[in-house]
This record gives sequence, C-alpha cells and structure tokens, in this order.
Amino acid sequence: MKAEKNFSPGLDGIVAAETSISFLDTVQSEIVIRGYDLIELSKTNTYLDIVHLLLEGVLPTEEEKRKIEDELKTEYEVPQEIFNILHLLPQQTHPMDGLRTGISALAGYDNDIDNCSVEMNKNRAYKLLGKVPTIVANSYRILNNQQPLTPLQDLSYSANFFYLVTGKKPTPLEEKIFDTSLVLYSEHEMPNSTFTARVIASTRSDLYGALTGAVASLKGNLHGGANEAVMYMLLEAKTVAEFEELIETKIYKKEKIMGFGHRVYMKKMDPRALMMKEALKQLCDQKGDYLLYEMCEAGERVMEREKGIYPNLDYYAAPVYWMLGIPIPLYTPIFLSSRTVGLCAHVMEQHANNRIFRPRVNYIGERNLTSKQ
Amino acid sequence: MKAEKNFSPGLDGIVAAETSISFLDTVQSEIVIRGYDLIELSKTNTYLDIVHLLLEGVLPTEEEKRKIEDELKTEYEVPQEIFNILHLLPQQTHPMDGLRTGISALAGYDNDIDNCSVEMNKNRAYKLLGKVPTIVANSYRILNNQQPLTPLQDLSYSANFFYLVTGKKPTPLEEKIFDTSLVLYSEHEMPNSTFTARVIASTRSDLYGALTGAVASLKGNLHGGANEAVMYMLLEAKTVAEFEELIETKIYKKEKIMGFGHRVYMKKMDPRALMMKEALKQLCDQKGDYLLYEMCEAGERVMEREKGIYPNLDYYAAPVYWMLGIPIPLYTPIFLSSRTVGLCAHVMEQHANNRIFRPRVNYIGERNLTSKQ
Repeated sequence: MKAEKNFSPGLDGIVAAETSISFLDTVQSEIVIRGYDLIELSKTNTYLDIVHLLLEGVLPTEEEKRKIEDELKTEYEVPQEIFNILHLLPQQTHPMDGLRTGISALAGYDNDIDNCSVEMNKNRAYKLLGKVPTIVANSYRILNNQQPLTPLQDLSYSANFFYLVTGKKPTPLEEKIFDTSLVLYSEHEMPNSTFTARVIASTRSDLYGALTGAVASLKGNLHGGANEAVMYMLLEAKTVAEFEELIETKIYKKEKIMGFGHRVYMKKMDPRALMMKEALKQLCDQKGDYLLYEMCEAGERVMEREKGIYPNLDYYAAPVYWMLGIPIPLYTPIFLSSRTVGLCAHVMEQHANNRIFRPRVNYIGERNLTSKQ
Repeated sequence: MKAEKNFSPGLDGIVAAETSISFLDTVQSEIVIRGYDLIELSKTNTYLDIVHLLLEGVLPTEEEKRKIEDELKTEYEVPQEIFNILHLLPQQTHPMDGLRTGISALAGYDNDIDNCSVEMNKNRAYKLLGKVPTIVANSYRILNNQQPLTPLQDLSYSANFFYLVTGKKPTPLEEKIFDTSLVLYSEHEMPNSTFTARVIASTRSDLYGALTGAVASLKGNLHGGANEAVMYMLLEAKTVAEFEELIETKIYKKEKIMGFGHRVYMKKMDPRALMMKEALKQLCDQKGDYLLYEMCEAGERVMEREKGIYPNLDYYAAPVYWMLGIPIPLYTPIFLSSRTVGLCAHVMEQHANNRIFRPRVNYIGERNLTSKQ
C-alpha cells in the first residue's frame, strides 16, 4: 500500500514550531536572535550578553552582565562523582558520548526535576552553563589520561573555558576570537539538535534529558561532527595544491564534503562563516603563517566553481580552533557547550506552550499478512 | 513579524517518514507491524517472534527463534563498570535517568561505533535486547540499595526479564501475560520516542545516542511516564466509588487524566488496551479479587460518559504490572525495554535511507533591534 499523504523527507520546509527565539531570514541574509542580527551582535557583544538575551529576552546592563558572570562562576564546579563516572568509561569512548553520559548523570543532582516551570528551567540553564564547559574539557582529559583541570575564577567565562580546553590562558586576541566563536555557535533556529531537544521536552520530559538527546544529535557528522571532519581534511592535505586536489577528488567521487552547504542558506554563504574567516586571518597575521587561510580559501573557490555551494560556520571554525590550540576531538563538544544556552531557551519555550510532537508516517510495507502459528 | 507558513503544533497530521515497519490504520482499527495485525500476533506469537519480525522482516521458524533466544542469552551480561557507574549516581536519580545514563555509557564498549551499516546496527540491536532488561532491573535495584540480580539462563527471555524486575520466577500465566505486554509495547509507528530516535539517527549519529534520546523522551508523563501515573491514581483512590470521584474531580478541574486518549486513535479505544484488560481479568480471576478490574472499568465508563475518550494501553498495563508484582518505577523502563526492538528497527531504516531532519519555524518575535553598545 502506498499512502498518498504529502511527505517532505527530513521535514524540509515544514514548520515545526512557533518561536520568538531566533529565525534564519534567508531573504535578508540575517540570523535573527531575539530581534537582533547575530552577526552585528558578534561584533559588539560577548557570549554572556547573548546568554542574557536568550534566557531573559533582553540584552543585559553592565551590572546584569557582571551578575551573570558571578553566578556562572559559582556553578563551575561539578560533583566529583561525575568525574568518577567518566573515569569508569572505556578509554575509546567518543568525547561526545562521554559528555552525553556526564550530562545525563547530572540529572540526579536536581532536587525538583519534575518541575518544568520557566523559573526552574532558567535556574537549571545557568547551572548547566556553568558546568558544561568543565564537563566538556575534563571528560576529554579523563578519557585521555590527563588530570582534570580546576576552573580559574579570575578569568572571564570565555577565557576560563579557553583555559580548560587548551591548558593555557588566552592572549586578549585569542580570548576575543574564542568568545566570538561561542557567540556564533550560541543559537541558530531549528537545527537537528535543537529540534531533538524540543521533541523530547514536549513529552514534559526534563531539561537534562532534552540536552542529552541534543548531544547525541550533534555528534552526527551531518551536524556538529562536521567541524572535526573539516580539520582532518585540512590536515590530510598539508598544502594548498593538495587541498584543492583532495576537494576535487571528493567532488569527482561524489563524496559528501563537510563544511559546505546548509539546508537553509542553500546558495548563499553562511554569514557566520565570514566572521570566522576574518578571525582565521587575524590568527594567521599574528603567527605570520597563512597556510591554513590559503588552503581554506582555495577549497572555497573550488567548491564555488564546481558545485556552486559555500562554506558554513564549521568550515572556518575548524582551522580557527586549530590555531587556538584546541584538540580536534573537542570541537564538537565546544559547539555543544556554546549551544547549551540556545537549547535551554528552546526547552523553556517548549515547556511554556506545549503540544507533544507526534507526527505520522507513509506506510510503504506489506498489508494483510497472517501468522501461520 | 508574523510568518504565514502553515503550522501544525506538535506536527499533528504531518508525515515525518516513509516506513515499512508499522502503521496505525485508524480506519480499519489495526496496528500493522510489518504487514501483520499486532493484536492477532499478540494472541499467537511471543515477544521473540516480534523481535525477529521487526529486525529481520519476517516471522521466525522455530529454529530461528531458538537461535535468537540463545544469542540474546549470551548478551545478558553487562560490564561491571556500568553497575559501578549506576552506584555513583545520587540515590534520588529517576530510574529512567539511571537507565539513560547506563545506555549512554554502553556506547564506549562498541569497537566500531561510527559504522552505521544495517548489519552492524542489527548486531547492536541484539546486544541491546540482551542487555537492556538487565540494566533496567539492576539500575533500579542499585538506586534502591538492593543487590543486582544475575540473569537466569534456564528461563525464557521474558521469564528472565520478569524474574529480574520482580525477584521471583513467574507462573506460566504470569510469564504469558508479561510476554504479551512486551509484544503490545514492542512497536507503535511514530510516537514521540521513536521520532526522537529517528531525528537523532538522521545526523548519522549512532544507535546508542538515538536510544538514549528515546529514553529521555519516554520518561515524560505525556508519553511513557503515563503508565506509572495511572497506577498512582488507582492507589490513591482505593475503592471503585473513590476512583470514580477522583476521575470526576479531575475532569471538573480540567486536569489531564493519564491513560486515556491518544492522538492517533482519537475517539476509538486503543486495541492494545483491550488485550491488557483481558489479562487483568485473568489475574483477578486467579487472585479471586476484582477490585482493580472494577475500578478500571468504572473509570473507563466515567471517561466515556463525560469526555467521550477511551483508555490507551498504559491504562490497563499499569494494573496488570501491579498485579504481577512489578515495582511502579519500573513500568516506564519496561516499556522502554520492550520498545527497544522497535526503536532499533527505526534507526536501521533511517540510517539506510537518510535525510537529516531540519524543519523550519514560524518566527513570532521582534525584528530589527540594534544593540546600543
């Protein structure tokens, strides 16, 4: 039996939710975050501004921003048992799976987990924003036989996160660029991981569960895993000519090339990619070595010429993170950490005005079979 | 700005996937599982038949069924580290959160986790079907300061599962009824948890992540959590008259009443509920005590009269599990365990013919704000 209902694979073009959080305006090429242009915000505001904007609905005053930073600093610490759990995971555990297990386990420390009010969820969001960077960095360190690091209270939120993932304090330029990357990754309408979180939350399940599901989603190499895939491709090539050749070969073999294209942007460049491209340039300036920048530009040209598609954020975030000295397996966990605020905002919105997600199917299998038993 | 796109809250009526696994035919009131009527299957076949049907596409021969059972028995054992992890969770951890953490941690034991081929996923599915009952039962036991139980190889799959969750070997009637409940819970088209699993899998993320997300989804009391809510309601009432009054009061207060209604069945009775109602009758016959049965029937009558809605599977599965001596906090984990096979089949189907889920939104927030900084 072929059902006749309209079916859009991957829900392409289907509206899944009403939201006042964010919107990709492809006509005006704008990523709208609570009314603001994300790219403009990324030039003038820091990650903590965006945290306040997403969770409270408005940009913070200087005082509100200091308050948030102070509050997050009191939440850096993670129960020792979480680290003990991470120690028990097999060494080969994928960092995103370690992170998923750690966040899942954190649920047990919530004394009022069934309460999904806006206020409770907001409190949880701040707690998670404090703890997730610590879990991201230390789950990776533990799985690699390194000592966990203790967060540094005298650094800014982003500088401390940078320290946790690299083991060194950032220069002002490094801190600024890392913070900008967190802003750019913070929220992006309804990608798969955000959709996952809202679908889970719609059963009245809790924020930890929604976030755990989002980690699982983001791990996939068609989603967050792409930034790591880009870096491995760049490292495989070594020179500009080799990178061009590698991309051309992949095009010829019809392989998927990570870091390019985006369902929503289609034939335009992801505006976030441009920001990270500029950051990459600044890091190359500082180092006096333009190899990665030139390789990326060359790849961009090949893809535009041969396929007419453009880089997305992951394409330029990957070499930026490389030049910042961040281990590759942490690129996707960092993406998750910066997106935590967007995910929390979406779960809060879903819980506040809920209808359980329960779509239907087109059944294309057999009918009217009977068991002979 | 109000966008104008068509929006169906909760994706009500929207087709999310093509599938040959199952279909709720509301016109013919049939739950189709790979061409068979689930209710007919539940009368003549056991859970392991359904496992084979869902994963291999056909009902097994007697020999194939024995082979599956032998294979699952070799997979009962769970790494000691998983139990050690569960020991580290705070005592107040919700059993579904313990289960979620345990399944998430299991991913680290997979030596080829990035391989999402049908064969690899099928192997994983059998491994999980062996281990999930052990994790379900022992995560609950550990969180309640009880010794983990060792699976009993001389019992059937369902009898062993019954033993793990109750601590006693089932009578033939108990084994049959428990097995039937597993059949009825095994697969059900595109409920929220199955949808969650497919959404996650569509990023090319792995089966463990998809299952972890499904556990998070199923925990919600608008979904799997409903069977436990029903039992607490029955226990609160104690008598037929009190139960009628309790339901009437809830209707008057416009509270959601768990165990009734279903997005897809709407105004008809969930055919699985009838099967569990019969099972409840058999258990009452055996005990010579019809209180729970009479309470449930009374509640059913009130809801039909006042609201015109009918019981779903959870409404009658709850008192059945109660009479089988299963602790209430295990009802939803058991639902998850029996649904594991359906979830695995859906992830396999998604991976085999994939398009990433990435819907859009109706943006109803502000536009054109500018940061003053």
